Order: sequence, then structure tokens, then C-alpha cells
Amino acid sequence: MAAKHEEKLMIACLQFEPRFGEVADNRARSIAMIEQAADAGARIVILPELVISGYMFQSRAEAFALAEPIPDGPSTIAWAEVAARRKLFLVAGIAEREGDRLYNSAVVIGPDGVLGVYRKLHLWADENLWFEAGNLGLPVFSTPHGRIGVAICYDGWFPEVFRLAAVEGADLVCVPTNWVPIPGQVEGRGPMANILHMAAAHSNSMVIACADRVGTERGQPFVGHSLIVGHTGWPVAGPASGDSEEIVLAEVDLSAARRARNWNSFNHPLRDRRTDIYAERLGAKPSDRRP
Amino acid sequence: MAAKHEEKLMIACLQFEPRFGEVADNRARSIAMIEQAADAGARIVILPELVISGYMFQSRAEAFALAEPIPDGPSTIAWAEVAARRKLFLVAGIAEREGDRLYNSAVVIGPDGVLGVYRKLHLWADENLWFEAGNLGLPVFSTPHGRIGVAICYDGWFPEVFRLAAVEGADLVCVPTNWVPIPGQVEGRGPMANILHMAAAHSNSMVIACADRVGTERGQPFVGHSLIVGHTGWPVAGPASGDSEEIVLAEVDLSAARRARNWNSFNHPLRDRRTDIYAERLGAKPSDRRP
Repeated sequence: MAAKHEEKLMIACLQFEPRFGEVADNRARSIAMIEQAADAGARIVILPELVISGYMFQSRAEAFALAEPIPDGPSTIAWAEVAARRKLFLVAGIAEREGDRLYNSAVVIGPDGVLGVYRKLHLWADENLWFEAGNLGLPVFSTPHGRIGVAICYDGWFPEVFRLAAVEGADLVCVPTNWVPIPGQVEGRGPMANILHMAAAHSNSMVIACADRVGTERGQPFVGHSLIVGHTGWPVAGPASGDSEEIVLAEVDLSAARRARNWNSFNHPLRDRRTDIYAERLGAKPSDRRP
Repeated sequence: MAAKHEEKLMIACLQFEPRFGEVADNRARSIAMIEQAADAGARIVILPELVISGYMFQSRAEAFALAEPIPDGPSTIAWAEVAARRKLFLVAGIAEREGDRLYNSAVVIGPDGVLGVYRKLHLWADENLWFEAGNLGLPVFSTPHGRIGVAICYDGWFPEVFRLAAVEGADLVCVPTNWVPIPGQVEGRGPMANILHMAAAHSNSMVIACADRVGTERGQPFVGHSLIVGHTGWPVAGPASGDSEEIVLAEVDLSAARRARNWNSFNHPLRDRRTDIYAERLGAKPSDRRP
């Protein structure tokens, strides 16, 4: 019998503070932090949502001016350069401009260049004023290290996203995010967002790596607490602090995540789904169902 | 403008220890505990999974002998009597016999009698040897207090269950359960099952009430930690201890749960679902998709 395949992979979530509108500085500081993560051995590096522009736009024109095309914009070019030089994979949030349209996107870059783009499917609050909702589905990117899905911030409130990524073969979901405080937070406990991603990692037996931003921007605080959740649902690194830039680093084994889906002789969380009961009924939105 | 509707409702999860095969004793002790919850003001009372029989069957014949029909079995009749007398609603786990078939069921009983039955959709491990998988879908029961969904134990590993209950109008999901220790548990933290139900309550803005059992049965320990999760995702009562019978009691407002789904001018967790992206793709199981 062959030895059990194991493959250790170091991943890093960069808890970063973008400064609103300071595009060149944000780009340079993000690259400096990527270099630090590379020095620490990271092969996959995740940056937060909207790293280059910041989050708190006051007009669509402002968002437009701070957005860049992919793959030809200066930030994607600069990130591709460091990914090639340090031989790593990057998942980084950026305001994407395609013609006159804007998307809240994450670019996925490997040592050989851009693998693709994910465009946020679920837009939160005023993002609806600046961005179009994602129109590229939920791609899973194949890399030598494993299959990678991407979700951005409010996407994480939809367990459907992680379930679909798992069904499509992802062993790791990278989450660039800008978590904000939400009502009902309990003093002294980490944010509910941490709980959501722990549940998703456990019930799909996958690794989920969340890179959140910190800082207060135009009066809006962000909550930090970046973390890497192992396939059992418990954090393997982090949560980080609520207010400081830091690198959250963990070694994971994506083959262990996939193997662990065989929970016992009978159970496997993807195969056990009773799609006969819920798939069709979950296809209709409440507004379609209730006249 | 009309005053904002509020309606306080006391619910109780009974963390109970069934003794294997001691049917009459389990029935009597469950009723004594229901009376205590009624004395404390509970209008909805949730009991664990398989309260009357216990869990650790060694043969199908044994499971068959310990199962009862619904609504004509002695336990359902006895529970209906206390529900009528104390004017409360009960959700209680029981091994159900229908002809030659067995189901891991929960009976839902009100002051006027049996409202219906939920049969566990997702069977865990050796339950597959004794029970048929549920064939009654995921019903939502209308009561004067609100709309109630039911899930049993491993059902809670499927976020689809809570999502569908919410889409179908449930404001409260009652979870009779028999949680067992699972790999990866982190010392000093509550069970991952608590995390799963916190995430489900938050991302659907619903109340979830989990009544777990305690005790060790034929070598199998159960983990307790019953809890009532508010619609923000944080516990409003519990988690209970890991090893003692106790009543977990909380006052909730189901209209607040439903109202809170309007998160802001743009967002509502049910209406924001991108069913155009994931509904159809989640309808197929991996085995259907990957030849």
C-alpha cells in the first residue's frame, strides 16, 4: 500500500491597511508585505478587498478614477512581477474597470502571470452604487498546489458560495475582505465573520483563508481578525488583532482536507446533500415564491 | 405610524439524558422536565433526538422494538396530553415506526394535538443501518407564536437546511440532537456544532434552538452544550454544560428576527442570493458531475 500523500503548503493572509486614494503608496506597501510573506516561506498570499483604492468612495466618479483594468493595469502588472520573481500565487482585491463598468474584484496571479479574475457576486450596501454585481460566476482556479476558490467579504454570508466551491473541486477558498462592525456583536468575542468562515470550512472540509483590512477610513472602522481556518473548522492561524497590520501564516495540507471529507463509512458532506429536497426549492427567491 | 410590533416568547431546550431502552422511564422523566419548563413560562419546548429509545442500537430489530408509531404511539399521546394541559408547543425526537419502516423523527405537538412530523433528512453513520432517510421534505409548521422549522443533528451540517427553512418562512428552527465528539475539537472551546448553528442563525437572521442530550451510552459519549441562538448569531441562552441535565431558557422575539433581515437599504440575506449563479450548479451532486 502506498504511503499516504501529504503536501505541506504555507499560506499567508496579509492584514493590511489601505489608505484611501493613495494608489501608488498602497501598491508599494502591499508589495513590501508580499515580500515579507515570501521571506517567511508563503507559496499562496492573500491580500484584502480593494487594497489599492480603499473602500469608502463618495461618488461613482471617485470609484471610477481609482479603478484599474485587469490584466493591463499598473497594480496587476506590479503584483505579477513580484509573483514571478518570488514564485508564489497571489489573490488580491482591487477595484476593476472594464470599459465604463466597475467590479469589486480579486485578481488571481501565479508565477507565470494572471490566472483569472473573480468578481464579487454579493455587493454590500453602497457598493451597489459603484459596482456591477459579479458576472463571471464562481471560478475555481487550478494551481500546482491545489484548486483555489475565491469569495469577497459579503459573499461569505452565503454558505452557497463555499458549498459550490467545494462541489467544483476547491480545497482552499481565499477571502479578500473588508469586514465592518455589525449589530449584535458580543463584547470580547471575535467578529461573527470568523464564526461564518469556521462553519463553512467545517461543513465543507476545506481550508478558508481570510485577509481582512484594518484602520478607520472616512469614519468607517474595519475589524481585522484575519484568520486561516483549517478543514476541521478551527483556526490554524489567527484571528489577528483588530487594529494592526500583520501577517497571518500557516502551513496547511490540502490533500488532508479533501481526504477528510470521508467522515466515516457512510458520510461525506458533499455526497450526503439531499438535493432532491432542497435544490429546486432553493432555486426560487422568496419574491418569486410569495406573490 | 403604528407602534413596532414586539412579541416576547419564552422557549426552552431540555438538555436531557435518555437511558437506553428504558422507554417508560424516559417518557416519564421527559414529561417531568417539560412540566418544569412550563412552570418557568416556556411556550415552546424542545427535547433531544431519540428521547424515548436512546441512540446506540445494536441491531435493526432492537431499533424496531423501541420505535413507536405517530400519532398513535404512547409517547406521542403522553406528550400531547402535557402539551394540551400546559398549553405549549413541543418538538421532540423519537424513533418512528410506520409499518416496517423506521425513521429518526421529531414530532411537533401543540395544545390542540399533533401538528406534524419531521423525518431526519441526513442520516449519520450507523443510523443508515436502522432508519430510512426522511421522505417528508422540510416542513415549516405554522403556530400562533410563529413559523417553526425542524432539523435533527447531522441535518445541521447542511446550511441548505436552514436556508430552505428561512425561504419557506421559518423564524425559528428547533433542533433535537445527539451531538457526539468529532475530530479536530479544540480543547476549552465549545463543540463545532455550536459554531455551525451560530453561523446559520446569523446568515438567515433566525432563531435556532438546539436541545442536545448528555451522558455516555454503550461507550458513546454525547457532548451537551445545548443552546438557543438569537437571530444575530450569538447565543441568548447557553451553551449548557457538557454533562448535566438542565433547562436552557430564553425569551426571544421572532418578529424582530424577521424584521432584522432588512440589513440596510440594499441588503437582505434571502433576496441577495445569487441563485442565477449557484442554484442550478448546486442541484447536481459531485458524483453526477464528475464521471
